[in-house]
Amino acid sequence: MDNEALRKLLTSVQNGELKVEEALEDLKELPFKDLGFALIDNHREVRTGVPEVIYCAGKTVEQVRQIIEYMLTRDNNILGTRASAEMYEAVKAICPEAEYNPIGRTITVRRRPVELTDSYIAIVSAGTSDLPVVEEAVETALILGNRVEKITDVGVAGIHRLFDKLGVIREAKVVVVVAGMEGALASVLGGLTDKPVIAVPTSIGYGANFGGLSALLSMLNSCASGVSVVNIDNGYGGAYCASMINKLASS
Amino acid sequence: MDNEALRKLLTSVQNGELKVEEALEDLKELPFKDLGFALIDNHREVRTGVPEVIYCAGKTVEQVRQIIEYMLTRDNNILGTRASAEMYEAVKAICPEAEYNPIGRTITVRRRPVELTDSYIAIVSAGTSDLPVVEEAVETALILGNRVEKITDVGVAGIHRLFDKLGVIREAKVVVVVAGMEGALASVLGGLTDKPVIAVPTSIGYGANFGGLSALLSMLNSCASGVSVVNIDNGYGGAYCASMINKLASS
Amino acid sequence: MDNEALRKLLTSVQNGELKVEEALEDLKELPFKDLGFALIDNHREVRTGVPEVIYCAGKTVEQVRQIIEYMLTRDNNILGTRASAEMYEAVKAICPEAEYNPIGRTITVRRRPVELTDSYIAIVSAGTSDLPVVEEAVETALILGNRVEKITDVGVAGIHRLFDKLGVIREAKVVVVVAGMEGALASVLGGLTDKPVIAVPTSIGYGANFGGLSALLSMLNSCASGVSVVNIDNGYGGAYCASMINKLASS
Amino acid sequence: MDNEALRKLLTSVQNGELKVEEALEDLKELPFKDLGFALIDNHREVRTGVPEVIYCAGKTVEQVRQIIEYMLTRDNNILGTRASAEMYEAVKAICPEAEYNPIGRTITVRRRPVELTDSYIAIVSAGTSDLPVVEEAVETALILGNRVEKITDVGVAGIHRLFDKLGVIREAKVVVVVAGMEGALASVLGGLTDKPVIAVPTSIGYGANFGGLSALLSMLNSCASGVSVVNIDNGYGGAYCASMINKLASS
Amino acid sequence: MDNEALRKLLTSVQNGELKVEEALEDLKELPFKDLGFALIDNHREVRTGVPEVIYCAGKTVEQVRQIIEYMLTRDNNILGTRASAEMYEAVKAICPEAEYNPIGRTITVRRRPVELTDSYIAIVSAGTSDLPVVEEAVETALILGNRVEKITDVGVAGIHRLFDKLGVIREAKVVVVVAGMEGALASVLGGLTDKPVIAVPTSIGYGANFGGLSALLSMLNSCASGVSVVNIDNGYGGAYCASMINKLASS
Amino acid sequence: MDNEALRKLLTSVQNGELKVEEALEDLKELPFKDLGFALIDNHREVRTGVPEVIYCAGKTVEQVRQIIEYMLTRDNNILGTRASAEMYEAVKAICPEAEYNPIGRTITVRRRPVELTDSYIAIVSAGTSDLPVVEEAVETALILGNRVEKITDVGVAGIHRLFDKLGVIREAKVVVVVAGMEGALASVLGGLTDKPVIAVPTSIGYGANFGGLSALLSMLNSCASGVSVVNIDNGYGGAYCASMINKLASS
Amino acid sequence: MDNEALRKLLTSVQNGELKVEEALEDLKELPFKDLGFALIDNHREVRTGVPEVIYCAGKTVEQVRQIIEYMLTRDNNILGTRASAEMYEAVKAICPEAEYNPIGRTITVRRRPVELTDSYIAIVSAGTSDLPVVEEAVETALILGNRVEKITDVGVAGIHRLFDKLGVIREAKVVVVVAGMEGALASVLGGLTDKPVIAVPTSIGYGANFGGLSALLSMLNSCASGVSVVNIDNGYGGAYCASMINKLASS
Amino acid sequence: MDNEALRKLLTSVQNGELKVEEALEDLKELPFKDLGFALIDNHREVRTGVPEVIYCAGKTVEQVRQIIEYMLTRDNNILGTRASAEMYEAVKAICPEAEYNPIGRTITVRRRPVELTDSYIAIVSAGTSDLPVVEEAVETALILGNRVEKITDVGVAGIHRLFDKLGVIREAKVVVVVAGMEGALASVLGGLTDKPVIAVPTSIGYGANFGGLSALLSMLNSCASGVSVVNIDNGYGGAYCASMINKLASS
Repeated sequence: MDNEALRKLLTSVQNGELKVEEALEDLKELPFKDLGFALIDNHREVRTGVPEVIYCAGKTVEQVRQIIEYMLTRDNNILGTRASAEMYEAVKAICPEAEYNPIGRTITVRRRPVELTDSYIAIVSAGTSDLPVVEEAVETALILGNRVEKITDVGVAGIHRLFDKLGVIREAKVVVVVAGMEGALASVLGGLTDKPVIAVPTSIGYGANFGGLSALLSMLNSCASGVSVVNIDNGYGGAYCASMINKLASS
Repeated sequence: MDNEALRKLLTSVQNGELKVEEALEDLKELPFKDLGFALIDNHREVRTGVPEVIYCAGKTVEQVRQIIEYMLTRDNNILGTRASAEMYEAVKAICPEAEYNPIGRTITVRRRPVELTDSYIAIVSAGTSDLPVVEEAVETALILGNRVEKITDVGVAGIHRLFDKLGVIREAKVVVVVAGMEGALASVLGGLTDKPVIAVPTSIGYGANFGGLSALLSMLNSCASGVSVVNIDNGYGGAYCASMINKLASS
Repeated sequence: MDNEALRKLLTSVQNGELKVEEALEDLKELPFKDLGFALIDNHREVRTGVPEVIYCAGKTVEQVRQIIEYMLTRDNNILGTRASAEMYEAVKAICPEAEYNPIGRTITVRRRPVELTDSYIAIVSAGTSDLPVVEEAVETALILGNRVEKITDVGVAGIHRLFDKLGVIREAKVVVVVAGMEGALASVLGGLTDKPVIAVPTSIGYGANFGGLSALLSMLNSCASGVSVVNIDNGYGGAYCASMINKLASS
Repeated sequence: MDNEALRKLLTSVQNGELKVEEALEDLKELPFKDLGFALIDNHREVRTGVPEVIYCAGKTVEQVRQIIEYMLTRDNNILGTRASAEMYEAVKAICPEAEYNPIGRTITVRRRPVELTDSYIAIVSAGTSDLPVVEEAVETALILGNRVEKITDVGVAGIHRLFDKLGVIREAKVVVVVAGMEGALASVLGGLTDKPVIAVPTSIGYGANFGGLSALLSMLNSCASGVSVVNIDNGYGGAYCASMINKLASS
Repeated sequence: MDNEALRKLLTSVQNGELKVEEALEDLKELPFKDLGFALIDNHREVRTGVPEVIYCAGKTVEQVRQIIEYMLTRDNNILGTRASAEMYEAVKAICPEAEYNPIGRTITVRRRPVELTDSYIAIVSAGTSDLPVVEEAVETALILGNRVEKITDVGVAGIHRLFDKLGVIREAKVVVVVAGMEGALASVLGGLTDKPVIAVPTSIGYGANFGGLSALLSMLNSCASGVSVVNIDNGYGGAYCASMINKLASS
Repeated sequence: MDNEALRKLLTSVQNGELKVEEALEDLKELPFKDLGFALIDNHREVRTGVPEVIYCAGKTVEQVRQIIEYMLTRDNNILGTRASAEMYEAVKAICPEAEYNPIGRTITVRRRPVELTDSYIAIVSAGTSDLPVVEEAVETALILGNRVEKITDVGVAGIHRLFDKLGVIREAKVVVVVAGMEGALASVLGGLTDKPVIAVPTSIGYGANFGGLSALLSMLNSCASGVSVVNIDNGYGGAYCASMINKLASS
Repeated sequence: MDNEALRKLLTSVQNGELKVEEALEDLKELPFKDLGFALIDNHREVRTGVPEVIYCAGKTVEQVRQIIEYMLTRDNNILGTRASAEMYEAVKAICPEAEYNPIGRTITVRRRPVELTDSYIAIVSAGTSDLPVVEEAVETALILGNRVEKITDVGVAGIHRLFDKLGVIREAKVVVVVAGMEGALASVLGGLTDKPVIAVPTSIGYGANFGGLSALLSMLNSCASGVSVVNIDNGYGGAYCASMINKLASS
Repeated sequence: MDNEALRKLLTSVQNGELKVEEALEDLKELPFKDLGFALIDNHREVRTGVPEVIYCAGKTVEQVRQIIEYMLTRDNNILGTRASAEMYEAVKAICPEAEYNPIGRTITVRRRPVELTDSYIAIVSAGTSDLPVVEEAVETALILGNRVEKITDVGVAGIHRLFDKLGVIREAKVVVVVAGMEGALASVLGGLTDKPVIAVPTSIGYGANFGGLSALLSMLNSCASGVSVVNIDNGYGGAYCASMINKLASS
């Protein structure tokens, strides 16, 4: 195909249909177009409902406001993660339809309708303290266009609660497991489902938890097959991976 | 459905079609059947081409031989990982069709035909030293029934080699990236494809590589979305995750 | 016994004493009942004096208040750990008999009388800075129904102080050792008593203490037999283990 | 009592029944006797069936032989841990009744009959690779006089196998959990039993297992109460703690 | 030469041109002069435009003010790093021409003209969050007399943006790469240029970033040759190294 | 000697010079006296000028005030380390002669005259940021009765400054080296003096300093003989060791 | 310039001087040529004396032999690092002029003359145990075309030996410092020269050296400006960086 | 004094008693002499009984033989540490009076008589596995001219054994504590003696011992004052520090 486009261009030059300078302009963008790099970025902007994402942590309120103000000019949906309430106030002033999830610390703007998949992602968590990460994952999955089932507080210390929910978990196309402390839920669920499990370790815990290291190592060493892991507390990343898989499964 | 089976059983007891003791026998297996635990294990044995897996490291040659001898009685396909050449010799003596991949250190036995998916998994690696992990991943993906495209030696230090192969990588349904040292290939590929990337850090390297820790941390901290990570040198695990996704995508 | 219950149920169905739908209802809960999962939770609520526990850290004052308000409806005793004074104020407003241990940061509510064991747990600590962990352990042991002997400030740097208290320590059924810095007290006491020692490393110290890592590693490497370890600063966990043992010993 | 012994001694001196030099001899041992230090060691030798223990790793064959030769003169039972087959051969030459467990790498000599408790210790493990640690724990528990139930290969990746064995586990007085990789079994079992759980992390695994660190951190961060932890691969230590508890519970 | 100076001095003494006491005074400074230690310090003060540097973190506002006040008496250029806005206010009061870079947190005073090199340093960064480190590097490079090209936001997740800037990067004499998270940019650039790359890992990121450790290890393990690394967040250090190289290349 | 005291006591009993009950009282204290445990504590109180020490960090202002109030009743000298200005105010209110070193964060009370040794301790530091640790060491050494020479800002980056001070350093009986960052000063000084060097790593630095770990490891791996190390930032501990040595050397 | 080439090509097509298919062939390689990716690789082969490099560790003797056999067909110089004596024997059989440095474990083949720079690299090391890394650095620097001055055994524990060599070190354009243990030599030399210092930490040492971590952290935290660091034991990498700088300085 | 020497030299030049070239020769060595660097080295050779030390690990048998052969020409005493039996055989061939300590792995050659101090160093160890480090320390202390008391197997798990030896320990001028596992012995002894304690952590242990890290951190965090620490397994270093102190105390 690329070859075809090039052949056509060269033939046009040969035919005199295209001037050298015009062809030159076209070719100057060639390296990226050819390699398809720009495709990703371009089609982000054209495909309905794919949001632009801003990681708000470490930015000032003013910086967040300005970036989102610029994004709004492109009329896309927007997802801001790790956003403070103060940031939300500043965004709301310029975009009244912006919504805030105070637990998940996300700002969402829906300028275009988001159609949800029929299949769904199960987002499962061990304890109530993992909720901020769960909510970040849920908001991400939703704005990326996925149906979501949220199952919370099914840690392995009371494993019967997990079995109660096993049906709904096993019907999902992909499972996101959010767990801190010893992160055993990922292994247990990995053994109970035949769907991909994306494990999100959280920094919940204390002492020898070492900021999420214990859950991270647990999940990487899962004795169950089919478990892969994203960064500590990275609810966004877990949901993004799950969304990719769910989209593949439902297409 | 479970309820249906139970109602039917109880009605049979009520009707006198089933004796109490017979019903009791059936119900004794209920907890697992009901919860579907056993399904996974059972359907492993019935579904054509799904292999039984044995992790050979830390076992004696004799133990490996005995386990595989037992597996052979069930007439399933078999995948042995981290197997020595000596182990293979012992297995070959009892199963002449067993095959050995000396680089990937896998033993494979194909008793039932494995039908490959149309879609494929791209298994991409940075350097030639990563080959053992790559080969383990390839053998795993194949025996699980996936078509595989193997692209090796496209590390980021010579990034033009990667671009040469970008077409075939981007046509895959899921990408397995195998890389040691700084593991940058996962991030670069994560930014160049819109498919899920399963990153397998390897222990290749020296000094501050710390047995694969540098690649592991790199991959977990990938600035590209859509990258999830399995354990260091875990080619089997990476391919298993990828197979789950590829199967979802091709079903 | 389980079999007995099932046989009885089936016979009732056979006899027509129980309708199929009624039996179905009973059986739906079977997997958990059968396995005994729910027993733990259920008997928590029925056994007098066994408290419900809430880990308050990372929760808002309002969340703690609501959870405890709900617990109060079940008329159980309550233990809140890692609770701030502000949390206590909010709880006291809805439950005047709630008590606060400002050093151990525990809230306790005693709705049912707690009968203490005859035998006791010795809770021994190295320095005055370990007191918060000690007090959390003491409050936990007490509300779980154990007699407690608290021995503080007997660190190994002044080992004669420890010998002064050796009599009372050796009469305990189980010893909880709370120590930070180098945590040597666990090893020394492990060699001086023939009772189980539960070691609680604390994050007390500075520099190469690394948040309790030094005491944790020390205790895990104890040259004395009979020492097991819980998480850093986990006074609650240490007392919980000790209570289990003390109850076994006194039953 | 100590005071009584002293008063009696002094009265004997006063009465002339005891010479000053004789009393001096008695008093010279006073500091230890008084403090009870020596009790432990002395009663080891007098109480039937309490073994002397030798940690063989890092010693030469000759050193092990000499130490055991000396121990044999005291006619006690003996437990040698981390012993090579070569060490066993050397010991057998001087003590034909010595036995060797080649998986657990233990040498045991039973010179006095060991009476087992009625109650038992459940020693539960996740995978077959954990067997060396399991066997060390079993041999230790047995020679210390405990009845043992060994349950192997019930890792959480196939959790239904665990439930099959739950009955026998829950009847134990204390549970030793031996698990490598992510060590999730300790948390799961901690939630399924109301007995003390002694967790023994193993170095089984690879990659980010970091020599047992992943299982160790998992177990220390267990979300289930009642779990305490001993050193990595320390089957002896885990069984020793469990024996102390079992003896308390059965006395 | 040193020998020459000494011979001359001794000859002067021999000739009576120099008194013993005068020669003694000269010789007293000999050890340092001879070894050239003092040269560095002395020529700092005499060479135009070489700044004096003060690391402001951990100092009080008053201390910074006093040190800079003293430096001003020597009429040199000054660079203050890790300076707060409050510190700048205090300095401005005594030196109105002082300038402040609020992002890079640098104070600069230019008392002597700084002539920039013809060749330049390329300072390249992955994300906008790395800007504080970038700005510190830029200010350092400028006051040390280097021309600088700043290229920001060219992280590997969107690698086409990097290629857009490749021309200007490759024309530099030395490249400073500032990157957090997985730090892959250093390896990618190392493979795309034949100039020395100084990599500055940043603490940007979260979770398993561990305060910059992931980027640091990545960069140290770079598969591209020609990459060397300075401390985490050390923009000053990276620019200092680059300046040394750029000066060598342009002399 | 102990034997002598015992023989005398027993003889007195035999002679009827001492009653049994009186002898019993004496013997009750025997274990400690005999072993000499209490000697240390007792002679602290009797030897002039030996201070009582209180580690103030982690204590409340009120706790510090009360402890020092109690100490004052024994009329000893007092050293409080890691004390805040607020703590000092509270102490000054009850003890007007108390002094505060705001950099070293020490409170000192001199109730008895402290006679300084003729020989001295050299306390040498690399950078001005190490001053808090230096000052803690100086105050400790002084109140323990040592003459002190303080040499600051002689880091190895400008090694000629160190040589300028080498004379005074080499005349000391023992050298305390306080250094952060890479802690190279300890090795350099270890090679330049034949006196014991006590190295105190500080947490000064940033990035891969990891809270003092870099300096700590440096000092432990010193290529110079005669260097031993205390905990990070432990100026008190370094000076205490040095004082012991200086006292031995000057006695 | 790129534009010029393109314009010329298009004009040739327009003029009919170049057929469409021929132009297509040229354009197919455009993306890489344009971006200059391939330049590096191509000019390696054309520029006299630039070696091809093979990292031999982890490869079999046969693999090394084959790779070098292939390289020989291109008539380039060759550098093999981390090569065993056995590998060298295999290479020598097919290339008699191959040379082996048994300490540095390098194989070198010089097919084209290597012209050395006038300016030189100083390669300085602390102890004799660092020699393998030094020799690897020396061989690398030489075959890359640099004059080298090797200064060994000038560790900071005997700093006068370093001063003896300071003249030759300071005349270099760039200094490579190879040091293990505490790696202080890098900081000391960084303060004594105004040239770039490339620090190579080595794994020489024991105990808390942790495989080179102590020297690595030391060097990263160097208090001297102008020091950058490569991976542990990476003599090749250090020399490569130095060569780049030396070439810039001598061009 | 230095000034005196210089004045004298200059006066001799002035007087014509010394030629310029002769004075130049003298002055060329001035920098080191002046600074006193060389003094250490020189007086090593002149002071009777001070050994030359060679660290044999990582050297070949031939290298060790050659180095010692050279040392023998200077007629000094020699201490070789970490020496294999094979190395000893090679040394013995050229120096029949060489002695070997197979446990401590030391070679010692006594060419000059070593006079021992009256006061002694106590070298105390926890377990028999620490003996290699103890023996290295003992051999070092002896050849450096110290009287030594060796007390082994007094670990804190059986603390009464330690008290038995307390008298001899407390009479020492300085105590070297060698301990692995949790290293608690250093803290316990630190509290029982008023002499400096040099703690040598050993790598004895397993699991979470992490190669001696647990004992190292324990000792650094010792709650007893007066404890300083050397590198893991560094018996030589511990004895060297102790010798410096003992010499100061006995001079």
